[in-house]
Amino acid sequence: MVTFENDYSFGACPEVLAALVDTNMEAMIGYGEDPHCARAKELIRQACAAPDADVFLLTGGTQTNQVVLDMLLAPYEGVVAAATGHVACHEAGAIEFGGHKVLTVPGHEGKMHADELEQLIDLFYADDNHEHMVFPGAAYISFPTELGTLYSRDELAAIYEVCQKHEIPLFVDGARLGYALASPECDITLPQLAQLCDVFYIGGTKVGALCGEAVVFPSGNAPAHPIPRIKQHGALLAKGRLLGVQFEALFTDGTYVRIARNAIDMAGRLRALLHERGARWFLESPTNQQFIILEKGEYERLGKQICLSFWDTYDEDHVVVRLATSWATTQEDLDVLAAAL
Amino acid sequence: MVTFENDYSFGACPEVLAALVDTNMEAMIGYGEDPHCARAKELIRQACAAPDADVFLLTGGTQTNQVVLDMLLAPYEGVVAAATGHVACHEAGAIEFGGHKVLTVPGHEGKMHADELEQLIDLFYADDNHEHMVFPGAAYISFPTELGTLYSRDELAAIYEVCQKHEIPLFVDGARLGYALASPECDITLPQLAQLCDVFYIGGTKVGALCGEAVVFPSGNAPAHPIPRIKQHGALLAKGRLLGVQFEALFTDGTYVRIARNAIDMAGRLRALLHERGARWFLESPTNQQFIILEKGEYERLGKQICLSFWDTYDEDHVVVRLATSWATTQEDLDVLAAAL
Amino acid sequence: MVTFENDYSFGACPEVLAALVDTNMEAMIGYGEDPHCARAKELIRQACAAPDADVFLLTGGTQTNQVVLDMLLAPYEGVVAAATGHVACHEAGAIEFGGHKVLTVPGHEGKMHADELEQLIDLFYADDNHEHMVFPGAAYISFPTELGTLYSRDELAAIYEVCQKHEIPLFVDGARLGYALASPECDITLPQLAQLCDVFYIGGTKVGALCGEAVVFPSGNAPAHPIPRIKQHGALLAKGRLLGVQFEALFTDGTYVRIARNAIDMAGRLRALLHERGARWFLESPTNQQFIILEKGEYERLGKQICLSFWDTYDEDHVVVRLATSWATTQEDLDVLAAAL
Amino acid sequence: MVTFENDYSFGACPEVLAALVDTNMEAMIGYGEDPHCARAKELIRQACAAPDADVFLLTGGTQTNQVVLDMLLAPYEGVVAAATGHVACHEAGAIEFGGHKVLTVPGHEGKMHADELEQLIDLFYADDNHEHMVFPGAAYISFPTELGTLYSRDELAAIYEVCQKHEIPLFVDGARLGYALASPECDITLPQLAQLCDVFYIGGTKVGALCGEAVVFPSGNAPAHPIPRIKQHGALLAKGRLLGVQFEALFTDGTYVRIARNAIDMAGRLRALLHERGARWFLESPTNQQFIILEKGEYERLGKQICLSFWDTYDEDHVVVRLATSWATTQEDLDVLAAAL
Repeated sequence: MVTFENDYSFGACPEVLAALVDTNMEAMIGYGEDPHCARAKELIRQACAAPDADVFLLTGGTQTNQVVLDMLLAPYEGVVAAATGHVACHEAGAIEFGGHKVLTVPGHEGKMHADELEQLIDLFYADDNHEHMVFPGAAYISFPTELGTLYSRDELAAIYEVCQKHEIPLFVDGARLGYALASPECDITLPQLAQLCDVFYIGGTKVGALCGEAVVFPSGNAPAHPIPRIKQHGALLAKGRLLGVQFEALFTDGTYVRIARNAIDMAGRLRALLHERGARWFLESPTNQQFIILEKGEYERLGKQICLSFWDTYDEDHVVVRLATSWATTQEDLDVLAAAL
Repeated sequence: MVTFENDYSFGACPEVLAALVDTNMEAMIGYGEDPHCARAKELIRQACAAPDADVFLLTGGTQTNQVVLDMLLAPYEGVVAAATGHVACHEAGAIEFGGHKVLTVPGHEGKMHADELEQLIDLFYADDNHEHMVFPGAAYISFPTELGTLYSRDELAAIYEVCQKHEIPLFVDGARLGYALASPECDITLPQLAQLCDVFYIGGTKVGALCGEAVVFPSGNAPAHPIPRIKQHGALLAKGRLLGVQFEALFTDGTYVRIARNAIDMAGRLRALLHERGARWFLESPTNQQFIILEKGEYERLGKQICLSFWDTYDEDHVVVRLATSWATTQEDLDVLAAAL
Repeated sequence: MVTFENDYSFGACPEVLAALVDTNMEAMIGYGEDPHCARAKELIRQACAAPDADVFLLTGGTQTNQVVLDMLLAPYEGVVAAATGHVACHEAGAIEFGGHKVLTVPGHEGKMHADELEQLIDLFYADDNHEHMVFPGAAYISFPTELGTLYSRDELAAIYEVCQKHEIPLFVDGARLGYALASPECDITLPQLAQLCDVFYIGGTKVGALCGEAVVFPSGNAPAHPIPRIKQHGALLAKGRLLGVQFEALFTDGTYVRIARNAIDMAGRLRALLHERGARWFLESPTNQQFIILEKGEYERLGKQICLSFWDTYDEDHVVVRLATSWATTQEDLDVLAAAL
Repeated sequence: MVTFENDYSFGACPEVLAALVDTNMEAMIGYGEDPHCARAKELIRQACAAPDADVFLLTGGTQTNQVVLDMLLAPYEGVVAAATGHVACHEAGAIEFGGHKVLTVPGHEGKMHADELEQLIDLFYADDNHEHMVFPGAAYISFPTELGTLYSRDELAAIYEVCQKHEIPLFVDGARLGYALASPECDITLPQLAQLCDVFYIGGTKVGALCGEAVVFPSGNAPAHPIPRIKQHGALLAKGRLLGVQFEALFTDGTYVRIARNAIDMAGRLRALLHERGARWFLESPTNQQFIILEKGEYERLGKQICLSFWDTYDEDHVVVRLATSWATTQEDLDVLAAAL
C-alpha cells in the first residue's frame, strides 16, 4: 500500500545502502575509531564550515536528546522546551531518567518564542525562592519542529541571543534537519545554523539512513570525556562503522540535501493537490509534513487505500491526519493518493 | 591486514546483508511493530522451544545489560556478577547510572561459582545490618564469559538453583552466545538455556549482525510495560526493522549457529597451530577467543603483520594477547598468521 | 520583631521541647528502633483509627515527597500534581532527581479538580502513542494546599475515586495537616483522611516540631523494604529517637490538634482584623495562611515593623503578601500588627 | 542498662541541649539563613583556621556522603574508597542511587594505603580501554575509620599528594572526627586536616548533637549552587536553626573537643580494664571504639548485663564485639562493666 505515514517507513536511501554493501567486508576497528567514522565527521565539519567541530554519531533521536542534555546540564538544571517539543512529551521520560526536569513555554505551531523563553528565565531569577526551583540550564528547540514548521533566521538568532545573554546553551534537535535545509522557505544554511546554536544534531534516521544521528558541537565545545558519557548511556556501538559509513555516504556529493529535496518537492505537489481538492488544513507546513482535518468516515475510507498517520482528535466528527513525504516518495505515490482522495 | 583482533571487525554476514538489501524498499510501520520483527521473534521462540517467550530487540550489549537489569532490579537491589563480568568493569558505569550497585564474587577464568554466589547471599541475610546494605537482587553471568570459557550444564544448573532458592532472577549475557552453542565442548542447547535462567540475550553484533541483541524472557515473564522502559533508555529504534530483518535472517535456515560454527572451526585450527608452534598459553578456551603470552618484542613484530588485541600486561617483558575468530575468519587468514608466527 | 512570616519561625512547641529534654539521657537503640518511635507510631495509628498502618518518620517535606513518590512509582511513571503543587515547582527537581516526571493539571486556588485529573488519565490512554509518554502513576495533592485552601470531603472522595478507578495511588502531602484538621471549615477527620487516600504524611516541622514528618500507609500497604529505600535516600537518622520523641509528644493528649487550633483561632482574628481595616484580599483561606494585596510603599513600611512574606508580584504597583499564623502566634502579636497596619 | 553499644545512644550533650532550649522561642528565618547558622559557620571557620571556607550543615552521615560525592563527581566518575569504607558497604546504595560507582582498594584496619590508591589510578589510565570504565573521580576516607583507627599526618599527606597529582579531590568522612582530634595518638589538628583534603565533614550526630554534620570546603572551593543541590537531595531543613544552634554550641568554648576527650579518656580506661582482664583483642584502637573476641556463651552472658554491639562472626565458637565510649560515658559505667566482665 502506498504510504504517506511517516518519513521512516523505508530502509536506507540507495547511496547509503550501497555504501553499507561496499564496505561490508572491510575489517575495521570498533567503537567509532574507524576511518569511515573519521571521514564522515570530516565531511560534516566541512558541510557545517566548522573545522573545529566535535562530532559524535549516535543511533536514534531520543537517545541523542538524552545524551546531549545530560552532557549540557548540571544536576540542578532543567531544559526549557516548547510544550510540544519531543523531549517534553514523547520520550517516555528519558530526560527525567537522567534526572532533569523539562521546563515548558507555550508552543506556537511547534515553535518557541524568544520573548517567552526570556520571560521564563527572568521570572526564575526574579523569584527570591529560585534556589528551591529547577534552574533553566539549556534551551531545546526542534528544527523543523514536530509540526514541520521552521524558525526564520531572525527568530533563531533572537532565541540564541537570549541564550547567550543568560549563558545557557542552545540545543537544536535536527531529527528532520534535511527537510528544513531543503525547504525553499528556509533562510538558514547549515553553516549558519552552526553559528546560531551551541550544539545540534543532523538527523539520519528520518532522512535516508537506517539509523543514526550526528551530533555537532560547532566550535569544538563538547564537554569533557564524551566517550564514557555515551558508553554509560548504552549508546556506543561496537560496530561504530554502521553509523560512519552511512553519514559518509549522506555527506558525499550532497546526498543528504538532495534526497531531502525530493521530499520537499513531493510535499509541494502534495500541498497543491490538497489545495486543489479543497482540503481543510490544520497546518500547512513548509517542510515534509502536512496536517489536514478529515471527517471520520472519510478518514476511515482513505485509510483503506493509503497509509496515513492519525495525529489528533479534532472534534467529535473530525480527526487531524498527517501526511509525510520522504526521500522515497514518488509521483506515482501522489497519483495513487490523488485517485483515492 | 589480516585480522584476529576481535569478532566485530566486519560488517554483516552475507545472509544478513542480503536480507537488509532485499527488504530495503518495503514500507513498514516503525518502532518494531513491523512483520519482520514479529517473524524474527517467532523464529527465536521456536529456536528456544519457548512458545510463550517475550522477545525484545535492542541495539548493543551495554544497552541491553542496562535495560534488562533496570527492569529486573528494585531500586534498593544490586546485581551479583563475577569481578571480570562486563557489567562489573567495562560498561563505564552504565549499571550505576541506573542506580544499581554491581556486587562481585571472584571470577574463575571468567566464571561465577554457584557456592560463592550462595555465600554472598547467605552472608548478606545473616548480617543484622543488611537493611543498610545493597540487596543482591539478580545474578548476571556471561555465556561464553569474557574470557571465552563455558559453563557446563551442571554448573549453570547449580547457579540457577541458588537463584531460584533465593528468588532472584538469573540473567545470562549472551553477547557471544552463538560461539558457545557451536562449541563441541558446550553441553547446553538453546532450549536448555531457556530453561536454566530467567532472561538471556542472543548476541547479534558479535555473531554476524551489523548491530542487535535479542532479549528473551523464556516464559513470557517480562516485567510490565517494556516499551516505555526501552524508550526511556533511548533504546527504541524508529526503524525497528533494522533489528527485525537481521534477526529474521540469522534465525532462518540455522544461519546463526552455522556462521558461529565457522568461528569455532577456525578457532580449533588456530589452537592447533598455536600448539604446533609451542605458544605459551594464558588461556585456551573452547570458543572463539584464545589468549597467549608473547614476549614484547615478538608482540610488536607480529602486530605489524596481523591485527591482534592487547589484553593485559603479563610481566615486565611479556603481554597477554587475544586472538579472536569469527564467522568471517578463513583458512587464508590462518595461513597468513602461520607465516607470520 | 513580631512575625507573621511563616509557620516554621520558632523552635518546638513546649510539649515537644519538654519531651526532648526529659528523654535526653535515656540510652536508646538507633535508626528508629527505639520505644519512643514505636510509641509514636502506635499513637498515630490510634489517631488515624488505622491499626494496621505502616508509619515512617522522616525529617522534612521535600525529603518525604521524594522518598514516598520513589516508593510508589515505577521508573516509567510520573506523578500528577496541580501546577502549584510543591513537588511541581518548589523542590529543586527532587522528584526528577529520582527519575520521575511531574505531570501537571491546573491548580484552582491550589487545588486539583477530580475531572481534570481523570481527563489527563483518559487522554493519556486514548493516545495511541502513549507508550512513548510518561505514564500517570500516582496523584499528589496537598492538604491544606500551598495556598492554605482545603478540599471538602466530597472533593477528596471524587479525586480518590478517580485514582481507584484507574488503579493509581493517591498521596496526600500534609506538611500543614494540623492546620486543616483544626479548621472549622474542614469536614474531614484524620480517620477519614486515612480512608480517602493510599498514603499521606502528618507534617511536624510546620506544626510544632523541630523537624519531622510522619508518613502513614493506612492499611499497612507500604511497598517492600522501606528501610533500605529510606537509607538509600540519606533519610534514615542514626538518632531516630529525635523524630520518635517529638511525634510521641505531638500525639499525646491531643497536642497536635490543640496547638494547630491556636493557629486557626489566631488566623480567624487576623482575618477579622484585615476585613476591619478594609484589606484587599488576594486569597482568604480557612487555614493559617492569608494572602493580601499591598501597595508597594505600604508593604515596605509595614515590613519594617512586622516580619511578612513576599508571595508574588501583583502588578507594577502592588505585591501579594502572605501572613501566616502558627501554634506560637499570640494576641499580643496581633495587637502589634493592628497598630502597624 | 549500662551501654557501650555505640556513640549515638543518648540525646544531645548538655551544652547542645541547653542551646536548643535557650533559643527555642527566637523567631528565625528558615532554610539555614538564620544568625545561629551564620555564627556556627564562622566558629567552624575559626576552628579550622580556614577563613574562606564554605560550610554547609546537613542532617546525617549517609546523606552527607551522598550530597558531597554528587557535588564532587562528574556523571562518568566514581569514588575510590577502602573496601570497608562506609560508602562502599553500609549506605544501602546511596552513592549508586546518585549514579556513581564505588571503586575499592583493600582496607588495612579500615585504612586506605596511598600506594594502592595510586596503583588503582595508574592501572586505570594505563588501560587502553579505560574510556569504557568508571573514572576514579574522587577519593574517600574516614577519619577515624569505621574501625576506630587513625591516619597519621604522613599517611594522610601521602594520600592527598596522590590525589593532587592526579587532580582528584579528597573527601574525608569525619562522622566521628571529634574522637580522632581528642586522641593522644592523633598527630593531625583541625587546621591541618583542612589543609590536607579538599572537603571534609565534622560529625555531630555521633559527637554530642541530636543530629547534624558540618561539611567544610576549606578554601571556599564548594561547587556552584550548593543550595539547590542540597534541596534536590531532600536535605535542606526548613528549620535550619536546628543544625545551626547545635553546631554553634559545639564550637563555643571548645565543647566539641572537650566532650570528645571524655570518650577518649573513658576508652583509655576501658582498654586498661580489658588488658587487665586478659581480653582477647580483635582490634585495639586509639579512638572510642574497641573490638574484642568473645566466646559465644560469654557474649550472651555479658549481653544480659551490658549493651554491646555484635560486630562480626569470628569463628564457630567466637564473635567479635564492639565496645564504644562517647561524651556520655562515665566511670560508673566502667565500674558496672568491670563487675560484669
